[in-house]
Amino acid sequence: MSKQEVKVDWLENMAFEADISGHKVIIDAAEAVGGEDRGPRPKPLMLTALAGCTGMDVVSILKKMRVKLDGFNVAVEGDLTEEHPKQFSKMHVVYEFKGKDLPLEKLQKAVSLSEERYCGVSALYKKAIELTSEIKIKEA
Amino acid sequence: MSKQEVKVDWLENMAFEADISGHKVIIDAAEAVGGEDRGPRPKPLMLTALAGCTGMDVVSILKKMRVKLDGFNVAVEGDLTEEHPKQFSKMHVVYEFKGKDLPLEKLQKAVSLSEERYCGVSALYKKAIELTSEIKIKEA
Repeated sequence: MSKQEVKVDWLENMAFEADISGHKVIIDAAEAVGGEDRGPRPKPLMLTALAGCTGMDVVSILKKMRVKLDGFNVAVEGDLTEEHPKQFSKMHVVYEFKGKDLPLEKLQKAVSLSEERYCGVSALYKKAIELTSEIKIKEA
Repeated sequence: MSKQEVKVDWLENMAFEADISGHKVIIDAAEAVGGEDRGPRPKPLMLTALAGCTGMDVVSILKKMRVKLDGFNVAVEGDLTEEHPKQFSKMHVVYEFKGKDLPLEKLQKAVSLSEERYCGVSALYKKAIELTSEIKIKEA
């Protein structure tokens, strides 16, 4: 079994420095709750993990399919519960592809392979909440 | 209902630039899987979200309890499944406090308030996997 570890060191106030496999990232709370906004908040990092995981899957699958992209981004929107602890109750992923005459079927195939078979972040989230997605295409 | 959104923009190869409430973070894959290690990998960001969330809870609860810390860090270790998609099957959180004559009962109380009542990241993860924790104290 393989393991991954991350450590966050308290700096001051609400700020921490995370050591993520050697990469240092400051995380902090918003000013409204006593932080100084020196870095991202923790909960959006959950959305970032999902966007990055499925984004990497999709670019590498499309590369194997020889689909050339002029641009690509992934946006993840999470709905938070009203009650405490405030937590995501649903996430929606928007894949936006830019390119000329992009083959929709291959894009759909790449997205569904990531969602169903490759992305370990969505695999975990799906056990707890609803995940939905859509594809947008911008002609380059 | 409140919403949070994060977008990641594809840069090249496996690298993406995340925009997390205005904070830019590069995420990338390891060299072994075709990336260039320009930033953290997605899955460890899940651990970072948990460490930061519960870490911020604990420092703010202990501040209200007038417990003075000389140092504090949170390490989160995740066990990955062997089968694909490789995903966390368990996470273990180690809270390490540094200080003089720290009151163990208050530290335990702060940790359990975060775990049971405040931290929205662990609330979601607990629905999918097992979460465990321990407290370590280093005399300053």
